[in-house]
Parts: sequence; C-alpha cells; structure tokens
Amino acid sequence: MIEYRSLRVGLLGCGSVGSQVARLLLEHGEELAQRIGARIELVGIAVRDVTASRDAELPTELFTTDARDLILRSDIVIELMGGIEPARSLVLAAIASGADVVTGNKALLAQHGPELFAAAEQVGAQLSYEAAVGGAIPIIRPLRESLAGDRVERILGVVNGTTNYILDRMDTTGASLGDALAAATALGYAEADPTADIGGYDAAQKAAILASIAFHTSVPVDAVYREGITEVTSAQIESAKRAGYVVKLLAICERLTDPVTGQEGVSARVYPALVARGHPLAAVHGANNAVFVEAAAAGPLMFYGAGAGGVQTASAVLGDLVAIARRHVIGGPGTAESIRAELPMFPIGRIRTRYSISFDVADEPGVLATVAQFFAQHRVSVEQLQQTVSEETGRATLVIGTHEAEESALADTTAALAASSVVTSSVSVLRIEGAVS
Amino acid sequence: MIEYRSLRVGLLGCGSVGSQVARLLLEHGEELAQRIGARIELVGIAVRDVTASRDAELPTELFTTDARDLILRSDIVIELMGGIEPARSLVLAAIASGADVVTGNKALLAQHGPELFAAAEQVGAQLSYEAAVGGAIPIIRPLRESLAGDRVERILGVVNGTTNYILDRMDTTGASLGDALAAATALGYAEADPTADIGGYDAAQKAAILASIAFHTSVPVDAVYREGITEVTSAQIESAKRAGYVVKLLAICERLTDPVTGQEGVSARVYPALVARGHPLAAVHGANNAVFVEAAAAGPLMFYGAGAGGVQTASAVLGDLVAIARRHVIGGPGTAESIRAELPMFPIGRIRTRYSISFDVADEPGVLATVAQFFAQHRVSVEQLQQTVSEETGRATLVIGTHEAEESALADTTAALAASSVVTSSVSVLRIEGAVS
Repeated sequence: MIEYRSLRVGLLGCGSVGSQVARLLLEHGEELAQRIGARIELVGIAVRDVTASRDAELPTELFTTDARDLILRSDIVIELMGGIEPARSLVLAAIASGADVVTGNKALLAQHGPELFAAAEQVGAQLSYEAAVGGAIPIIRPLRESLAGDRVERILGVVNGTTNYILDRMDTTGASLGDALAAATALGYAEADPTADIGGYDAAQKAAILASIAFHTSVPVDAVYREGITEVTSAQIESAKRAGYVVKLLAICERLTDPVTGQEGVSARVYPALVARGHPLAAVHGANNAVFVEAAAAGPLMFYGAGAGGVQTASAVLGDLVAIARRHVIGGPGTAESIRAELPMFPIGRIRTRYSISFDVADEPGVLATVAQFFAQHRVSVEQLQQTVSEETGRATLVIGTHEAEESALADTTAALAASSVVTSSVSVLRIEGAVS
Repeated sequence: MIEYRSLRVGLLGCGSVGSQVARLLLEHGEELAQRIGARIELVGIAVRDVTASRDAELPTELFTTDARDLILRSDIVIELMGGIEPARSLVLAAIASGADVVTGNKALLAQHGPELFAAAEQVGAQLSYEAAVGGAIPIIRPLRESLAGDRVERILGVVNGTTNYILDRMDTTGASLGDALAAATALGYAEADPTADIGGYDAAQKAAILASIAFHTSVPVDAVYREGITEVTSAQIESAKRAGYVVKLLAICERLTDPVTGQEGVSARVYPALVARGHPLAAVHGANNAVFVEAAAAGPLMFYGAGAGGVQTASAVLGDLVAIARRHVIGGPGTAESIRAELPMFPIGRIRTRYSISFDVADEPGVLATVAQFFAQHRVSVEQLQQTVSEETGRATLVIGTHEAEESALADTTAALAASSVVTSSVSVLRIEGAVS
C-alpha cells in the first residue's frame, strides 16, 4: 500500500449535499487518494446543531459548531451551507487564511461572485463552484475551460428541476399548475415554500452565474430579467402542444450587438417560453436539467443530467475537490477567472424574440382589423393568427404568433390590446425560443 | 491597449481542422490574449506541400515543410496531421524539446497513448486531446476533471457522425445502407473510402480513449471488440422501429465485476445496437454525436453536439490551447494523467446484454419447439418471440428478444440455430443497450 501525504478538508454545512460529500469522502478515500496522489482527510463538519439528524451516517466526532476554527485547520474548505451569511464571511475567511474553496452556493455567487473571485485571485487561491449550476452536470468547467477558445453566443438552460417537473407534468397529464406543484411537493421536488423555484429566482441566480462565465462579464442577479411560471395555465400548455411546442422555464444568456452603435452587450433573462418539440431541450423531462450552448465555432452543444439531488450534486463537489487537490500535489496556483470583458447589459426592452399572444375578443365584425392595427402600429409583424370559438362558452379566442420583435414594441402592443374594448380577457404572452435547425 | 508577452504556437498539419485553428488564431488574437493574459503567436504551419490549397486563406509565409525546426521554435505544438507516423515521432520530439502539446489525433492516442502520456509526465509537459473524441463536444475534460471524484460505471457513445447519419437516414427514409452511404458521401460526411467509419474502426479508437480516461486503465484499441454497420439492413431497422427501437452504432465502455472472483474489470466494445426510442441517445440525429455517461453518484449525464467538422473541432483544439497557455502564464505544470488503476479487460464473450435475434424458419410443425430448445440448452432466456409470415414470399420470420445473457452463450445459441435444418436463412443479431428509466 502506498503512503500518501494528506490534505485536510473542512466541510461547512451538512444538508442533503454536504452529508453525501462527507459519506463519499469517507467511503472512497482510497480510490480518491490514488487519483490525487494525496489522501483527503475530512477533519471536520461545521453545523449549527451537532445533534440534528443527517441523510448519511457520519462519525459524530467530526461535527463542530465552530466553523472559523475548522477553517484554520483546513487546506481546502467546502462550503455547502447555502444563503448569503454567514457563508460569505466564512468563504472570505477561508480564502484569507490561505485555504482553497469549493462551493455550491448559487445565491452567494450570483450576488457576491466578483468580490469572492477578487479575493481568491489576490492570494492565488482556487475557488470552484461546479455544483452551483446544473447539479451533477459538468457545465461550469466546460464553459470556463473547454470553450475558452471559442465565443459563446447564447445559452438556453433548463436549470430548475422543480419547475421542469411541474411543466412536464402539466404537459404530459394535462394537470393544472396547482396539481402539478402538489405532485412535485409530494415527491420532494418542491420545498414547503416553493417561491424560489416557481418564481424563477433560483433560475435567475443560475442565469447570472452562467452569463458571467460565458461572457467574461460580471452579471449581478439583479440585472437578470425574471418571470416565474406562476401564470402558466394548462390551457396555454394545451394550446402550445397543438402548435408543436412545449413550455419550458428557460434561463437565457445572450451576446448581442446594438444595431445602431455596433456596441456589444449581453442579456440574461428567465421566463417560461415555447420551445419547438424538435429542439433537444424539449426532450428534457421530469426534474432533469439541461444547458444548451451555442458557440461561434463549436455550434450547438447540450449538457444534460440530474440538476439536483444530494448524491448527484455531491459528484460535482468532489470533482472540484479532486481538481484542487491535484493542484496542491503538483504545485502551482489554480486557474484564475479569465480577465473580464465587462460587456454592458441590454435591458429586457431591447431584447428581440418571437411571441405567442392569446386573448379573447368580442364576436363582432371588424375585430380582426382592429387587432391587426395594434400590431401594425407598434411594428410587430404577425406571422400567424388562429381564431377559435368555444362551442360551450361561445367565446372567441385569438392566438397570434409574431415574427421577431423588440420587447418594448411587444409591451406597447399588449398594453394597447388590454386597453381596447374589443379584447374581453387578459392578454397572455409566451415567448418562443430555440430555433430548430 | 495592454501589452502582453507572447507564446509561440506551431501547427503541424493544415487540413480541415488545422486550417480553421489557424484562421481563428489569426482572427481572434486580441480576444484570446485578454482571456489568457498572453498573446498567441502562430509562428508556423508545417505541411507536406506548401503550395496545396487550404480551407481558409492563410499567410503563405507561415507555411513550412520543416516540422522539426518549427517544433524547436514553439512553446506549444498543435498536432493535427492525423495517422501514426510521422505524428508520433513529432509529438515525442515536441515533448522532449520542452513544448506542451495539443493533439486531435485519435488514432495516435488509441494506439500510443500510454507512451505519449509517460513521456509528457516525465518532463512535466501538458498533453491535451479534447478534439480526439466527439469533435466540438467537451467530453475529455469533463471525464478527466469534472467526474474525477465520481466512479464512471458505463459510457454509451454515438461517436461516429458518418454512421449516425447513415443509420438515421435509413430510419427516417427507409433507405438501404448503400443509398444512405451514397447520400453521406454526397454531403461530405463520408470519405471516398468509408471503411474507417462504417467498419467501426473510428468508433473503436474513440472507445479506447474514453475507456482509458473513464477507468484510469490503459485500453489499447486492439482490445476493443468491434463490429461495424455493414451488415445492418433496412429490414432490421424497420423491425426495430416497430418494436420501439432505433439502431445506433454504440461505443460502449463498462466497468464490470466478475461474479465469481469479485475482481473488477472493464469492457470496451463497438457494435450496432437497438436503443429504445425513449432513451436520450435515440434523439441524436444526423451527423451529431453524443456521449451518455452513467456515474455512481452523478447518475446519467449526456454530452451532445457536432462530432466532426473543421471549425467545430477547432473549438475543442483552441479550448485546450487556452488552458495550456493560461498555465504558462500563471505557472506550474499541467494536471498529469491520473494514476492508473489498470483494471483487466473483460473479453467480449464475458459481456452480458440483451439481444434481438432474427431468422427465417421452415413453415412446418414443431419448429418453434426446436428453436426454443436451442435457447434453453445454452441458458439464454427468451423474453419475447414474434413470428411473421410474409404474404408475398410465404417465408416465416422469427424475431426473438432475450433477457440478459452472456455473449458466449448467445454465440453458442446462434451457431446451433445456423446449423439447424429448421432455420432457412442466416441468423442476424442486434444487441439491445441503454435501459430507459
């Protein structure tokens, strides 16, 4: 048996991911040591309550409530506490103490990423966060490294498993949003308070992180335009189905050029959108995640897998840990964040996409002409129009698909429609994303 | 404008990938310099004939026929010549001279990988080869780094675009193999001599590379069991379609355990197989590639994109180049190949999978009993059996689906069938891979 030197690892947080990381470190120590050339010694697990029950059986002597002391005893710190504080202060303390850091904390990165990266760069510490987006799916490293010689043009991500499960269930069973959410809760896919998921906040954090890496630009989560799935109805999904689409909550990161000034900029946004059934993202079912990347040279790429789950996400954490540990063994600092391009953000009003707009109209002559005029006035070009009259209610519903138009023009159009006397319902809009080649 | 130090890059080979690498290096120099913190200076392109025409317009003064001199003038050497010699000698010369190396040469790696890795490790040189498998798809780096803390259990890869195009076309249009191959040739997807693709040799090289990385074991290409698609008929594809399957040429790498000794081992094999239409790999159309990875903690992952093409593959080469160049800038050696586990190879006869076996039988009493006996004798358990009688020819065809059985038992069964007087045609076998969960 080979004798290895050891690297001390301190774990902050022991929830569903943390407990699996600890378990795997203890169970597969020998195999990891062979791959790294050093033994990983889990020296402690900092938690708020050492008596709380855990998802995995772990030696009680590892637990401590003194995170700062644990940091000072660690070569590598794994932060899996979640939330902003005390996670932010502890990660900064770990970096300042000379430790390298692995984190899966998307909220922290989306809000304080630049501060953490700067702190790490200053002391030459490594800071890795593969687990922050897409759970088990390797997406951070491919974006940072594999595509480092290419130009990412666009990312379309299904990055929230809860909402994908809900929308997929609505699509396959015809369930209402409420029933699908209840099913997600029963399966443990949705939390007691599902706001972070169904409100699109979780996806927005991931969009901020993906856009930052892809465009070498700091994109704060507050700059991400966000709509959740709370307004999506089973009627919309049914209608999308008939038209050959599926509704997905997309995190979209895009490189754009101002047509007037030629200035490059970026957009990051989250909203439910229609995706054609022939698009690879349409085949992402259940609570799975997938990130579809379009790069100038590589063309379209897709990364698919489990977007959440304790043991799945632990795989991403351990991948980061092994990479950092190898660097300890062979020497040299980690790869710093690439020098930032700092492109400006395009506001949502400047984004151009296609739309599917539906609303009820009064069943009287001249209605279509009036509606068409609203579109023409705001320079939104209609691609197709479908009017259906319900036999039961006698209501006439219009579904209008547009060519590409600017968000601001679309907003003006829908405002005019909503204010018009010929429109007898609210006006609902779904964007259409992801061309099928 | 920032002044950067420069790194000298020498390019060996200027075919469809090499010419795009050179073009992108010349066109995006400024952007790459920002990301790397150093300027990439393309100092020369070694080719056999400096007057040959190229896919991209490149400065003639860069071309040279003296590859060895170019190597001595380069900090980083990109080898895109293909083939074994002189590529092998030149890569070894580059490593010996102190240069780092990027290569996309799958034949070289599949045959001489261990020699090259050992040479690189000895002098602390970096050797990267993302472009060798899956074209633009980041798969080597995710396997080597992102999954370094996990245990890869199985890889199912659609890694040859030509054969995927052919099989997809046979599936969607009902074309014969010959017609689909002709279409692939017309589109430039197949070469004048398509043997490397349709014979499965290209896929076998990639299987050897993937298995080596995934299992930390040197898997020579000669140890990869290989069947091409030359025997696949449109009748088989039609029959597969009716049963809910699609035929794909799969590169399969698997971690196995001997049930008797408990000894771990690996298998690498390439053959056309039935994949259920609900499996993510079934949705890989045209000349695209995808690699489906099952890891113990991460669960199923899939990496999808363009598996070939000059500019697409150039993206992977440039990703490797940027990673290596960054390491030059920040110091320290590259990450060495992980210490090898060197698991033994399981021969094909020891592999267990499911099978779909079809053959014609004489239309006489007792035939089914005779056939069933051959399966029972060799302990191959029948899961389903379908007999169809052609109205035109009057021929009775049996299609038998089996439970999991060992290849050697299956081979004995088919040999017995083929020798039997009740079987009136050749016996064709397709394996069934990729469980749909």
